[in-house]
Amino acid sequence: MSELRQEEGWQLEESSAVYSLGDFALEEGYTLRDCKLAYATFGELNEAKDNAILITTWYSGTHQVFTDFYIGAEHALNPEKYFIVVINQIGNGLSSSPHNTADPHAMARFPHVRIGDDVRAQEQLLRERFGIEELQLVMGGSMGAQQTYEWAVRFPEKVKRAAPIAGTAKNTPHDFIRTEVLKEAITSDPAFRGGCYESSSEVRAGLARHARLWSVMGFSTEFWKREQWRALGFASADDFQVGFVDAYFEPMDPNNLLCMAWKWQRGDVSRHTDGDLAAALGSIIARTFVMSIDEDMFSPVRDCAAEQELIPDSELRVVESTGGHLGLFAFEPGYMQQIDRHLGDLLDSSGTAERRTR
Amino acid sequence: MSELRQEEGWQLEESSAVYSLGDFALEEGYTLRDCKLAYATFGELNEAKDNAILITTWYSGTHQVFTDFYIGAEHALNPEKYFIVVINQIGNGLSSSPHNTADPHAMARFPHVRIGDDVRAQEQLLRERFGIEELQLVMGGSMGAQQTYEWAVRFPEKVKRAAPIAGTAKNTPHDFIRTEVLKEAITSDPAFRGGCYESSSEVRAGLARHARLWSVMGFSTEFWKREQWRALGFASADDFQVGFVDAYFEPMDPNNLLCMAWKWQRGDVSRHTDGDLAAALGSIIARTFVMSIDEDMFSPVRDCAAEQELIPDSELRVVESTGGHLGLFAFEPGYMQQIDRHLGDLLDSSGTAERRTR
Repeated sequence: MSELRQEEGWQLEESSAVYSLGDFALEEGYTLRDCKLAYATFGELNEAKDNAILITTWYSGTHQVFTDFYIGAEHALNPEKYFIVVINQIGNGLSSSPHNTADPHAMARFPHVRIGDDVRAQEQLLRERFGIEELQLVMGGSMGAQQTYEWAVRFPEKVKRAAPIAGTAKNTPHDFIRTEVLKEAITSDPAFRGGCYESSSEVRAGLARHARLWSVMGFSTEFWKREQWRALGFASADDFQVGFVDAYFEPMDPNNLLCMAWKWQRGDVSRHTDGDLAAALGSIIARTFVMSIDEDMFSPVRDCAAEQELIPDSELRVVESTGGHLGLFAFEPGYMQQIDRHLGDLLDSSGTAERRTR
Repeated sequence: MSELRQEEGWQLEESSAVYSLGDFALEEGYTLRDCKLAYATFGELNEAKDNAILITTWYSGTHQVFTDFYIGAEHALNPEKYFIVVINQIGNGLSSSPHNTADPHAMARFPHVRIGDDVRAQEQLLRERFGIEELQLVMGGSMGAQQTYEWAVRFPEKVKRAAPIAGTAKNTPHDFIRTEVLKEAITSDPAFRGGCYESSSEVRAGLARHARLWSVMGFSTEFWKREQWRALGFASADDFQVGFVDAYFEPMDPNNLLCMAWKWQRGDVSRHTDGDLAAALGSIIARTFVMSIDEDMFSPVRDCAAEQELIPDSELRVVESTGGHLGLFAFEPGYMQQIDRHLGDLLDSSGTAERRTR
């Protein structure tokens, strides 16, 4: 895997690169040789190395969506003020993933990776590559929220503020079975052949079914009822599914998606506390805004709120979006204004360290 | 298709039979030869023939669930007071269906059937077989709600009261794509072979995926979180899925399910009014209780409430059940008490006819 190209036309002055962690031992007991993380940075790290923000990525996502929508001088995630690092999760196709890894771990032989592996890898990258020992903020959506929670529990002294969006610290039982159905849509395609396909395009039918499941649960019922795809330039619901949902998911590599899905199903910070979720969340010292999307069918506000109540210095901030879970893609007018307001409030607040010195 | 057996051990004195409508012309332009409706009756039709209640069935459902849970002297649907007829919808496996119909309409060649076809067939059965011209109540859940709405719009003078439960008069766009995904789970199984399988058990994999989709959307997120399957005698979520969800759906015939799914996707009373839903619902004269299940992910309260507001003499009655849409199966303690209370209130109220005579 070579350095990521600095693509032309990106809006921001961004530096993207790949960092090798060397051989990386995974929680499940396998060693990923020459484990690589792809990341993008925005802004400048100051002398004190204390102006860093970490953004984590979601299932199927890369740093690109943050480049395009979340980061900028007009946003709370302001690269003129902060040094912002977006790190692609293992398995997402840019960092070490089934499709870009050599044997013995190529393709379906790629080992199971856990959220904790990602977070340890990210911590190593930030420390070794940049000397960053403290983060003003860790934030991420969906699986990125899982990583955010993991950071706040695993490295409490390093996280001053945390903003998990549209995700939970412990994956819910419903989320588990829903993700199982996503996986089965892919693996049931005869062309999947146990993950030993020649080209991901062979698994097109399975990928299409996987995409359509996202249509059903990814948005809200109201999104479809109000025909909000019209504002995105589509002529019909089916046009939107073909041109947006299918087009987004179908080019992805099936084994990569399955790697992330397995990880997603098992996100659980209570692994640190023998299954005691209250103890794990109670140990968080970061100032935490639990941000939930009101129309999210994956991570309902109710589930997010129940976790927020277990975090000492926290607030529940509900974002209104009929985009539902996929509102995270920031396509709905008014969405980013809400995100900016909440993240702005959080960044303006005193984080953990200041509170401790008082 | 022979007479349904009077099965031993049924709780109620029930009479079940099959009525042949003869050749039945469908809205889509095909003629179903010797179209048969399977039905069950409870109680006695009085001399005036004015104590009848019609219950319609849902996707995958038969009259059995009403026999087991909804009808009885202790319920609002009291056979000591009313003559209750449950009519199985076309395609459900008991009435004329792909799997029990001879060519030219056997199996995948079974013609498309619409909700309006079912309702016309039901009206013919009630009139020809029993001389029933007026119904004290029409009620049904999910696809049964679609039939209930169709009755109230198509035969307003015959319906004194209507209770559509957990369903909509016009299928929602989200419901359409969700049902499409259900269909694709079956049709994508290579063993489905365009509907020309030898035995439905060959399509077991597709039926299993179809069942698991019901796991994801049929119940509520809270049902899984609270592990409410425990109360049903299962040891784990997977045990419940295998022993309850899979076991329920997997013996069904794929072509039958697809027949019902196509019909379900196109339920729409505004077909009577050139697409004007307000006009269609505004024409209902039955006293109508729109009954919605608070945790229903298929037919959210919001969607049901929007339709209720368009019905002149109506009320919204929200049933609390973490069972979600499949709460209709009445497995949750307290569910039937709510249904009985609402149906009791409705049956105690003056229906259309009395109101008109005042």
